[in-house]
Amino acid sequence: MQPKDKITVLGAGSWGTALAMVLADNGHEVRLWGHNEDQINQLNTLHTNEKYLPGITLPENIVGYYSLEESLKDIETIVLAVPTKAIREVLKKVLDFQKTPLTIVHVSKGIEPDTLLRISEMIEEEVPSELLKDVVVLSGPSHAEEVSLRHPTTVTVSSKRMEAAEKIQDLFINQNFRVYTNPDIIGVEIGGALKNIIALAAGITDGLGYGDNAKAALITRGLAEIARLGTKMGASPLTFSGLTGIGDLIVTCTSVHSRNWRAGNLLGKGKNLQEVLDNMGMVVEGVRTTKAAHQLAEKFGVTMPITSALYNVLFNNASPKHEVDSLMARVKTHEMEDLANVLEEKVHE
Amino acid sequence: MQPKDKITVLGAGSWGTALAMVLADNGHEVRLWGHNEDQINQLNTLHTNEKYLPGITLPENIVGYYSLEESLKDIETIVLAVPTKAIREVLKKVLDFQKTPLTIVHVSKGIEPDTLLRISEMIEEEVPSELLKDVVVLSGPSHAEEVSLRHPTTVTVSSKRMEAAEKIQDLFINQNFRVYTNPDIIGVEIGGALKNIIALAAGITDGLGYGDNAKAALITRGLAEIARLGTKMGASPLTFSGLTGIGDLIVTCTSVHSRNWRAGNLLGKGKNLQEVLDNMGMVVEGVRTTKAAHQLAEKFGVTMPITSALYNVLFNNASPKHEVDSLMARVKTHEMEDLANVLEEKVHE
Repeated sequence: MQPKDKITVLGAGSWGTALAMVLADNGHEVRLWGHNEDQINQLNTLHTNEKYLPGITLPENIVGYYSLEESLKDIETIVLAVPTKAIREVLKKVLDFQKTPLTIVHVSKGIEPDTLLRISEMIEEEVPSELLKDVVVLSGPSHAEEVSLRHPTTVTVSSKRMEAAEKIQDLFINQNFRVYTNPDIIGVEIGGALKNIIALAAGITDGLGYGDNAKAALITRGLAEIARLGTKMGASPLTFSGLTGIGDLIVTCTSVHSRNWRAGNLLGKGKNLQEVLDNMGMVVEGVRTTKAAHQLAEKFGVTMPITSALYNVLFNNASPKHEVDSLMARVKTHEMEDLANVLEEKVHE
Repeated sequence: MQPKDKITVLGAGSWGTALAMVLADNGHEVRLWGHNEDQINQLNTLHTNEKYLPGITLPENIVGYYSLEESLKDIETIVLAVPTKAIREVLKKVLDFQKTPLTIVHVSKGIEPDTLLRISEMIEEEVPSELLKDVVVLSGPSHAEEVSLRHPTTVTVSSKRMEAAEKIQDLFINQNFRVYTNPDIIGVEIGGALKNIIALAAGITDGLGYGDNAKAALITRGLAEIARLGTKMGASPLTFSGLTGIGDLIVTCTSVHSRNWRAGNLLGKGKNLQEVLDNMGMVVEGVRTTKAAHQLAEKFGVTMPITSALYNVLFNNASPKHEVDSLMARVKTHEMEDLANVLEEKVHE
């Protein structure tokens, strides 16, 4: 058995809460911070989080906090489970009082538009090095609802320093929640972020009434373009064949739980971006990520046809049907050209 | 426009009929052979195939035949769309009268147990070389029902002689049915065959009530073990990242149309193999393929944990729950070990 630790999870949405449950199941002392006082009271009195994980009873060793400062007292490890957009803001608040170094495990997915930073890079930019022990990313095919039901789930952790990733692996691993390590932090973060683009596009093809054949082609091509960009950015092409690549892509593109897929589905049915965002009432990471990936493709000189098509739909009012039909009809007859480029570029580095 | 040709499709099941429709849409003269006289009469009078593609009207340039010999008169290209198990028998009948060489396009998926031959190898063994111009395989993520509805679909063709594959690409390609070429016939055939094993296993996890997280992990790991075996057999590892690898795997594992998935689902719900086969009343290729892959794994000294687990469930009465739980709990913490082995083996060849 691993020694018991105390850990604070920042962000009491569905994923933060589900991960707090895994840590609590492993016997750790878990603090779960959220900014909604009513939600935290419910958590501490009824041991539920009805808004985000309806019907689930939480272990009693999860204690809710709405004071950020109190939640971090004597803590060395935090799990950062807030939307990508809120990460800098939350970290700034932490730095108002934090005096000792932290290991930060981030579990969000995205690329920051304009700066084009991965999340671990955003954290390193925001937190002074004397207060930052390690940054670890945890990613993989994992619906929070299923994790909270203790259904079998596998994820990957990665960090620049493998010992840090292994320590986090020890904290989380149990019979239902299998944790693997992978030294390729760039690949793990890029795969997790960019799959949301493909999920939006898969939602569009479903919304257009195309079938599983078209969606499978889109996912396959999507994986190739993610790998092409990721490899240029320094990732290992193999990572995209793993849990945080194809695994996460499958779960996100084929499940109606996925909010990116749902947003795409509404776009395919003829809604425009603003109507979709109003309708969802939630963050749709894939929209911001499409913008960032479009910029990255230009910066690295990589062809990303699906990303470009989606960018045109989201930001240039292009017709989803026209864009998808053009994608399907692309004149490229040798299947391996795209894929071979990935490895060739790697070899010629 | 490609020149018009005449082609015979052998096998009037759903896939053979859907492919006949694609060829007919392209203006070719298409003959569709089946051994059921009533079905062929229906096809020629009502232009329907109610048993296999209910509700679909077939183009009138598809003509049904129940005489094999008549269907092949003056024909140079045939599409072989019969179950893997029937291939040798049908070819033997063709050889009773065939005097001129044929290009044989096969569209079935499987490995022959005991001989461990791929389908193109079975054809080469069965047909004397003076009667066999080329063997081409056509494979990819493609439910027949969707192809018959002219939904966008992408497939790959491959052959030892690329000109032969390109000729078949020209016959089939149109706006809805995109055809790519790939020179790696071993990888295309192995991916198509072995995905049925993973589909059976995915059906089992769904039947056990596990969720999308477990299924995504299984598909990811499944792809790795297919690639590991395929690479040892001489395939390019890249092919498994393409349409006939991950693409076909996704469509087969995530669709309730797939009969392999459905068979696995019944196994996961507690039925034994005989009950499942009785219940399905159709060929379940994955069952034979599991046996063949189990033999191949031994022959090539490759570890295939999912194949072994499924073999135990199918042929040794092992409990599906016990086997799946053991798979999930395997002690392997570095995700990339498996995947890296694929490439390493390739490099060290």
